[in-house]
Amino acid sequence: MAGDAANDPANGAASHAASDDDRFRRGWAKLQEVDGAAAERVMTALQDIAPDLGRYIVEFAYGDVYAHPGLDNRTREIVTVSALAAMGNAQPQLKIHIHAALNVGCTRPEIVEIMMQMAVYAGFPAALNGMFAAKDVFAERDAAGKTN
Amino acid sequence: MAGDAANDPANGAASHAASDDDRFRRGWAKLQEVDGAAAERVMTALQDIAPDLGRYIVEFAYGDVYAHPGLDNRTREIVTVSALAAMGNAQPQLKIHIHAALNVGCTRPEIVEIMMQMAVYAGFPAALNGMFAAKDVFAERDAAGKTN
Amino acid sequence: MAGDAANDPANGAASHAASDDDRFRRGWAKLQEVDGAAAERVMTALQDIAPDLGRYIVEFAYGDVYAHPGLDNRTREIVTVSALAAMGNAQPQLKIHIHAALNVGCTRPEIVEIMMQMAVYAGFPAALNGMFAAKDVFAERDAAGKTN
Amino acid sequence: MAGDAANDPANGAASHAASDDDRFRRGWAKLQEVDGAAAERVMTALQDIAPDLGRYIVEFAYGDVYAHPGLDNRTREIVTVSALAAMGNAQPQLKIHIHAALNVGCTRPEIVEIMMQMAVYAGFPAALNGMFAAKDVFAERDAAGKTN
Amino acid sequence: MAGDAANDPANGAASHAASDDDRFRRGWAKLQEVDGAAAERVMTALQDIAPDLGRYIVEFAYGDVYAHPGLDNRTREIVTVSALAAMGNAQPQLKIHIHAALNVGCTRPEIVEIMMQMAVYAGFPAALNGMFAAKDVFAERDAAGKTN
Amino acid sequence: MAGDAANDPANGAASHAASDDDRFRRGWAKLQEVDGAAAERVMTALQDIAPDLGRYIVEFAYGDVYAHPGLDNRTREIVTVSALAAMGNAQPQLKIHIHAALNVGCTRPEIVEIMMQMAVYAGFPAALNGMFAAKDVFAERDAAGKTN
Repeated sequence: MAGDAANDPANGAASHAASDDDRFRRGWAKLQEVDGAAAERVMTALQDIAPDLGRYIVEFAYGDVYAHPGLDNRTREIVTVSALAAMGNAQPQLKIHIHAALNVGCTRPEIVEIMMQMAVYAGFPAALNGMFAAKDVFAERDAAGKTN
Repeated sequence: MAGDAANDPANGAASHAASDDDRFRRGWAKLQEVDGAAAERVMTALQDIAPDLGRYIVEFAYGDVYAHPGLDNRTREIVTVSALAAMGNAQPQLKIHIHAALNVGCTRPEIVEIMMQMAVYAGFPAALNGMFAAKDVFAERDAAGKTN
Repeated sequence: MAGDAANDPANGAASHAASDDDRFRRGWAKLQEVDGAAAERVMTALQDIAPDLGRYIVEFAYGDVYAHPGLDNRTREIVTVSALAAMGNAQPQLKIHIHAALNVGCTRPEIVEIMMQMAVYAGFPAALNGMFAAKDVFAERDAAGKTN
Repeated sequence: MAGDAANDPANGAASHAASDDDRFRRGWAKLQEVDGAAAERVMTALQDIAPDLGRYIVEFAYGDVYAHPGLDNRTREIVTVSALAAMGNAQPQLKIHIHAALNVGCTRPEIVEIMMQMAVYAGFPAALNGMFAAKDVFAERDAAGKTN
Repeated sequence: MAGDAANDPANGAASHAASDDDRFRRGWAKLQEVDGAAAERVMTALQDIAPDLGRYIVEFAYGDVYAHPGLDNRTREIVTVSALAAMGNAQPQLKIHIHAALNVGCTRPEIVEIMMQMAVYAGFPAALNGMFAAKDVFAERDAAGKTN
Repeated sequence: MAGDAANDPANGAASHAASDDDRFRRGWAKLQEVDGAAAERVMTALQDIAPDLGRYIVEFAYGDVYAHPGLDNRTREIVTVSALAAMGNAQPQLKIHIHAALNVGCTRPEIVEIMMQMAVYAGFPAALNGMFAAKDVFAERDAAGKTN
């Protein structure tokens, strides 16, 4: 995120009282741990239509829930990838969280196993569509020179 | 499909020949690891209407997928609990797999965290209904004298 | 919309003029063919809260769609049972339509096969919940002395 | 069902006799109020494959349900946008109904609020995918010189 | 809510910094506007298993989203009832929000219209299951002497 | 599980022992009956990421379930098309199975009727999205010179 304050989504929280700032900073730090680049793209896309939705993602989803003690980042991303693949109606978010899972320590073979397990609980179409999302993500990471 | 063996998907089975008896025994053993009692109840309930569906659960769901290398039992149950809680339309199976997750090493606070994370990805009703399923399971285990 | 009658979708109705009474009578007759008793229970339950919803079920669902040429009753009930079992969130209607399917010529083993096929496309929980709905329906029919 | 006319659901149609032409004209007029251009595109697309489905949209969805007394057009479109955004598997229809909602008196900020509320009940992915659908619709309307 | 501090879910926020307290108070006040009794039951049920989920409902769902400017309580409840009825897998929450909608100015006939509209977008089973939930709620309110 | 062999679910496998090679060959033959070309494309796409998922499709979905006695290919494809159209989140698989249904004896007008029936049980958006998938498939088959 550049130093250009006017374009910086993190400024969206500027006028909120002290502990909302704490939640925003904690959430933003958590987002940087799991997938900073994707988070910034989503925040930027929301900036002109619903900046408060972006703020809630940072404060609530990451500042409250992801930062809650009790599960490490890797397990949280396994939970998220499993939920999104099973629901089958949120492909953009599924791809973002496959990236995030790999960023925080999951391996590609583990992602493949999660998708195979979808065949049992959500059916083969969910497994296949999840697997092809994973295949796209793996190709994006290969193109970016990432080895996991 | 051409005669080019290297590109022939039908070759995928070449190194896997095993009898259905092997798959059933492997699946049944896996089921005993995760939740033998619930499995027997389901199998018994299917016996007079669709015994082959019970057989597929053992052979395919447990003998093929759960027994596949690449994820341990605990992670597989986290995947299953997350998928079922997100889908929100399979409460009996969700409760069985909360039991199974606890049987293979998940803790009650981890189950609670998984349900809280549902609020972010599947909405608060999914989180609440998953949490109340967990509460029922915890009470059943308390009544049975189980400490986890 | 131009004055070109041949391309004017509004002309689609030209050859269909029929009174709502005709549609209601046709739908009611169709309902009697597939499951008159269940239909009357639903209509009666709606009578004091939303009689027009009951009327739409008769006129539209049965008078228009079920009575449309192109599929026989048995195939229509196979379509309905498959859809409801896959969706997994409409158990009361699923049971009504398992009854209806059996009333119009499906056999119990065919219903069992449909539920087994759900394991492939909607997952084993959908298959199991559909199968147990079928088991309940079969027991109700046994108790009523019905042999199919 | 007894001969007691007062309790006979079949009597529900007695005061409703109207020709299908009446229903089609009423539905078509209603469609013109909410989104005539989109309706014509859908009807035209159905003309060569399933004209009766197009007819049912006009007669039943708009001629019966939308034209039913009890809710104004604006509230009906809020209901529809909320339902489609929550289901998350009908993006083309969601965009059509965001247009329709704006056509009948909803404001853009109200659409944004509806999508934010999805985060609570259907999860953040549903909120985000709904919001991006709204963003596309707003851009289409800007390009068409529409100010709301 | 009684004066017994030890059992008072509102105390759950006690150790949170100032503006989380603000959010909690704002959310709690909003909850009292829409359905205080149901909210207290849910908070109490969560108290021994996941008090933070209860806190997030108050702070985020009601303190952030419901209290956000841009839609009045009545419209927000129409949005929620429509979403939950369409999803079809959250009946306990659907009933709570039918109560809430009636508490903040919706009429019973408006709830009935919303459910009828579900037939068009989510299918007749969703409409019927929503309507029967409404029928239960209306009976509960009759029994409690409520006239709307 | 008692030693009573007659009640022992584990006995369910006794008469089914067959090698995985047998299941794969039976499944592959079944796939050739319904849609060999699409099956090969899917298997090839899985080859470098999850060949075992491809193998399970052949062995379990086709070798076990589709090859199970009790329903003919045409009825099985009607079940699958109905399930996928109702779920609404598996468009690639829906199109593959519309092709398959036509390959094994369904007619185009029958596919159109199935989609129209979705309007009743899953809502008009599911009916429309299924119908447009069918329209695409029909155009692909016209382009390939297929007359059904």
